[in-house]
Amino acid sequence: MRPMPRRLSEIQIGSSPGQRRLSARSDHLTADAVAVDFSHGDVDAFPPHPAAEAAFVAALGEGGQAAYTQYRGNAGVRQRLAGRLAALTGAPVDPQHELIITPGTQGALFLALASLVEQGDPVGIIEPDYFANRRIVGFLGGRPVPVRLDLFGRSPAVLDTGTLRAALRAAGAHVLCLSNPNNPTGAVLPETTLAALAQTCAEDDVFVVMDQLYCRQLFTSAAFTHLRALPGMRARCVTLMGPSKTESLSGYRIGTAIGPGWLIDRMEAVLSITSLRAPGYSQRVLDTWLAEEPGWLADRVNAHRAVRDRIVGILSKLDGCQVTTPDAGSYLFVRLPELKTAAADFIGELADSEAVVVTPGSEFGRGFDDFFRINFSQDADAAVAAIERLVRLASERRAD
Amino acid sequence: MRPMPRRLSEIQIGSSPGQRRLSARSDHLTADAVAVDFSHGDVDAFPPHPAAEAAFVAALGEGGQAAYTQYRGNAGVRQRLAGRLAALTGAPVDPQHELIITPGTQGALFLALASLVEQGDPVGIIEPDYFANRRIVGFLGGRPVPVRLDLFGRSPAVLDTGTLRAALRAAGAHVLCLSNPNNPTGAVLPETTLAALAQTCAEDDVFVVMDQLYCRQLFTSAAFTHLRALPGMRARCVTLMGPSKTESLSGYRIGTAIGPGWLIDRMEAVLSITSLRAPGYSQRVLDTWLAEEPGWLADRVNAHRAVRDRIVGILSKLDGCQVTTPDAGSYLFVRLPELKTAAADFIGELADSEAVVVTPGSEFGRGFDDFFRINFSQDADAAVAAIERLVRLASERRAD
Repeated sequence: MRPMPRRLSEIQIGSSPGQRRLSARSDHLTADAVAVDFSHGDVDAFPPHPAAEAAFVAALGEGGQAAYTQYRGNAGVRQRLAGRLAALTGAPVDPQHELIITPGTQGALFLALASLVEQGDPVGIIEPDYFANRRIVGFLGGRPVPVRLDLFGRSPAVLDTGTLRAALRAAGAHVLCLSNPNNPTGAVLPETTLAALAQTCAEDDVFVVMDQLYCRQLFTSAAFTHLRALPGMRARCVTLMGPSKTESLSGYRIGTAIGPGWLIDRMEAVLSITSLRAPGYSQRVLDTWLAEEPGWLADRVNAHRAVRDRIVGILSKLDGCQVTTPDAGSYLFVRLPELKTAAADFIGELADSEAVVVTPGSEFGRGFDDFFRINFSQDADAAVAAIERLVRLASERRAD
Repeated sequence: MRPMPRRLSEIQIGSSPGQRRLSARSDHLTADAVAVDFSHGDVDAFPPHPAAEAAFVAALGEGGQAAYTQYRGNAGVRQRLAGRLAALTGAPVDPQHELIITPGTQGALFLALASLVEQGDPVGIIEPDYFANRRIVGFLGGRPVPVRLDLFGRSPAVLDTGTLRAALRAAGAHVLCLSNPNNPTGAVLPETTLAALAQTCAEDDVFVVMDQLYCRQLFTSAAFTHLRALPGMRARCVTLMGPSKTESLSGYRIGTAIGPGWLIDRMEAVLSITSLRAPGYSQRVLDTWLAEEPGWLADRVNAHRAVRDRIVGILSKLDGCQVTTPDAGSYLFVRLPELKTAAADFIGELADSEAVVVTPGSEFGRGFDDFFRINFSQDADAAVAAIERLVRLASERRAD
């Protein structure tokens, strides 16, 4: 065995979404109990738009033109997509220089950070936030500078920009990586927060990697502010988006990043050595994204809202459990009541005996060991029944 | 603009395959002249097996089970593929621990090196060889230790194992990365060379990253030796293979790596942060790979042999041009005669005025500035006409 390179020391994937396999179901479950893997969404419950398959098959018919693209992606797809992304985000997108098609939004995240973070660089990381942020910074030899969200206030999570600015300044950090809407809390950054963040970027020369994967799935009527649309921010941030979540297109492995030309050039260079390009035929599926017929998105958001509300209602009845209704996305970040067993053991028992997989809170930062995350993009009845099993088990295991 | 991380300094992609766009065709070309991009294969001339599309569409119908897989890939696909890979390579493959499905063979190469090479490590690199080898080592902060092939002997290229061993020893290198069949020369390592390499691995504790992308496309009757099948080598090498070349499935972005469990575990961890997994639906296309009906592969190899021989025949008539008939694969590595202009200028003129794109030899290592590589997996008549235009231009530009 060769010695393990240090860059791998932060990557533990045993508890990551999709990695824990559901075991054989426990004897005590009724015959109609459905196993639910809340670690990721169920694309059978919320299937892809049928136009996606049609676009893929059409691309196969095109042959080589679709299979081999520039590393940064199919020029025609970028040309057509740029206008829709500009309309969505509220700022122009130059399809040739400011846009790259990536292997999922995960790919965009890796490429952006690899193109920005030098060995030893401090990088602002939110806690809780998507677990890969910290892992990628570690892989690159960067130094995570954690900034903690306030949980369970009026909003699911609040980012205090004074705290953020002070932490970045103290560490000398010039790169910040965060998700908005936040993963795992579903909190949306208000415009005042983003305006303050933009001011920090300008005054302290901070560049932001902004993961907006869930920015279309909004449950509040408040407008969503895109950081890149604020004055001066097109040069100071890269915006990551893709159709893997709300649109259920994860199986095609496509995402996008919008950023300044110098950064997109670098990201393309990194992509050339990690996987050459996003899958050629899949890229054409982006022609169907942000192009759904009127009402499609609203229907999908409404259906998710209904599942969210049923699950929050059930969890709220569990004494000592903390959960706040998310403003966006498909995640609930839930604090367990005090249990007789460690939360990790509870989560293991839940999977093994109740056929319910959740993601441990420890994935999302330090100090969240008694939390779990669920992705509620599921069949509503199966999800509700699974959460009822979770609540019953938690009640049984509660500390006296 | 943020400072460029040092890891990007080695990645120049302007001359990489598919990156140079064909310009508007020159006025002097006849109306029936066809532009040919020799930087990669033409999947319209050699289309994918129709079973590939059927497998993909069937996977779409399966929904979530196909879309979300373990990061290392669909368990069923790995189970079914392992036996065929074992038969091909001549050594057992444990589908659970020794096999990972990757985003193309390019992805496998990145994941393997990222899992083996520590900052500052010396890594044996062959010259000429696939350009990404050197770039990835540079990205990882490793130190390439070049080992030169002898070109244009009886074989297209010869690896002297004494030279190799001395170079690795002198540098203290314990990782070696190379392709077999070699890219760009199409040389196949003979069994004696591989046996000597295996001995070096055992005696000097060397681990080999062996890129065998073209190992099915063999033009000689000599048996192809898989390094992993030699005694003790299953623990000392990772074998990279995929269906992107001979099988024309590049547009699906799927590849595989076979290696010891500790390495596959690491590669999966890296994959979790670079792009999560190979595209879920595409993974099912691997069910059609190494499973083609009898005769399919022989037909494809014979068709490539015919193109190869026509092109080598034309190039051989160009005074001062050096080329050796390759034993395998789709590449020709050609040394230009002495020209009045720099080879880079000739290659640019060739693209701009003759609508013929080739890959500059400088991509493949130091000292190959007067070489170019072509991928002859092309429509035969279009390729022959394009090479005739190349030969005519080279004759016109030849030094007096």
